Amino acid sequence: MSELKKAAALKASEYILDGMVVGLGTGSTAYYIIEELGRRVNEEGLNIVGVPTSTRSKEQAESLGIDVKEVHEVPYIDITVDGADEFDQDLNGIKGGGGALLFEKVVANHTNTNIWICDESKCVDTLGRFPLAIEVVPFATDLLFKEFEKKGYSPVIRPSETGRYITDSNNYIIDCHLESIENPYELAKQLDNTSGVVEHGLFLDIADIVIVASMDGIKTFTRD
Amino acid sequence: MSELKKAAALKASEYILDGMVVGLGTGSTAYYIIEELGRRVNEEGLNIVGVPTSTRSKEQAESLGIDVKEVHEVPYIDITVDGADEFDQDLNGIKGGGGALLFEKVVANHTNTNIWICDESKCVDTLGRFPLAIEVVPFATDLLFKEFEKKGYSPVIRPSETGRYITDSNNYIIDCHLESIENPYELAKQLDNTSGVVEHGLFLDIADIVIVASMDGIKTFTRD
Repeated sequence: MSELKKAAALKASEYILDGMVVGLGTGSTAYYIIEELGRRVNEEGLNIVGVPTSTRSKEQAESLGIDVKEVHEVPYIDITVDGADEFDQDLNGIKGGGGALLFEKVVANHTNTNIWICDESKCVDTLGRFPLAIEVVPFATDLLFKEFEKKGYSPVIRPSETGRYITDSNNYIIDCHLESIENPYELAKQLDNTSGVVEHGLFLDIADIVIVASMDGIKTFTRD
Repeated sequence: MSELKKAAALKASEYILDGMVVGLGTGSTAYYIIEELGRRVNEEGLNIVGVPTSTRSKEQAESLGIDVKEVHEVPYIDITVDGADEFDQDLNGIKGGGGALLFEKVVANHTNTNIWICDESKCVDTLGRFPLAIEVVPFATDLLFKEFEKKGYSPVIRPSETGRYITDSNNYIIDCHLESIENPYELAKQLDNTSGVVEHGLFLDIADIVIVASMDGIKTFTRD
């Protein structure tokens, strides 16, 4: 699996050109694109500015000598490369398995071209097989948990080794095991309107390009 | 002014009956309803459970001997009494001057009957004269500030004595000086959809009753 992720990351790297501002995703797949960009910076003299979506990615980029800025320090981001937990034929997806959905969405929304890199297991007919991460303020967590339970979302408050998983913004995550999301736009709207919900893992109309690595090679899907 | 606030609070107190779960607002007007409910608990043996919307209100209620629970510990709230910074003829309003908009909205959304208590200066034809508080995650604050500036919202990051005002959920507040909000529903939708925005001070279709104290007496407005 890691070979496939790496192959997709190498393909995505071809889109990154000298002088670009590049959003750096978070997670096991994004790890490889940051690693490859670090290699190009050091070996090829690639000149880029990276905008990381998590403290983890920031630390990795800095350790590789990539120049790093925060999202408000750049006028816009040319290309963001990130992983996805799931995507469908409309290039809509679910992200948030890594817990960085909020920063990832803020960065994605300020990016001209969003590229997702995945292995083929992430391609689904209908979103929802992967649990939908919902970032919630601590104050409303138990209340929202009960609400999601009533709605049949099969919620689980994401645990950590010491209690509850805490996001980079000091919130909690409720993972909803929906299995099948018939209308992702309607669900996104409902969650956006729910007080106490900071962000959710439905990334709709965001990805422009999805690069998928399989045993048969690399496939590139582009939004119409 | 404080006499008017107190008069409105005394009127609102008449709605609170024995056995109710009562949401306790935050701010200079809500202060008086908590004080009056504390008096009734102690002097008249009123039996209620209070659900506070801030640490301030919680401390006040507890100091007066009001039984306090958190919002997720009650099945629903019968009546919430809170102040408002502005309200219009549709009983839509702006809240958030006190910085507790997020908890106030969560509590209001779990309440059967929401009562706002105000003095007459809070009644406006068009919302927006009072700055609209927008609670934002620290990570996205400077970015959103620039965006709001571009949109002509005249944003100000709320200061504190030591730097930036920090909410009970450890976020910042951007106060937008809009002067006049022509379509509050459209603006609310846009803000709900903006990544990095945790909550905003537009309270639409929430108040059921608004009690207004003026020099001429008490007026009560009820949603149609």
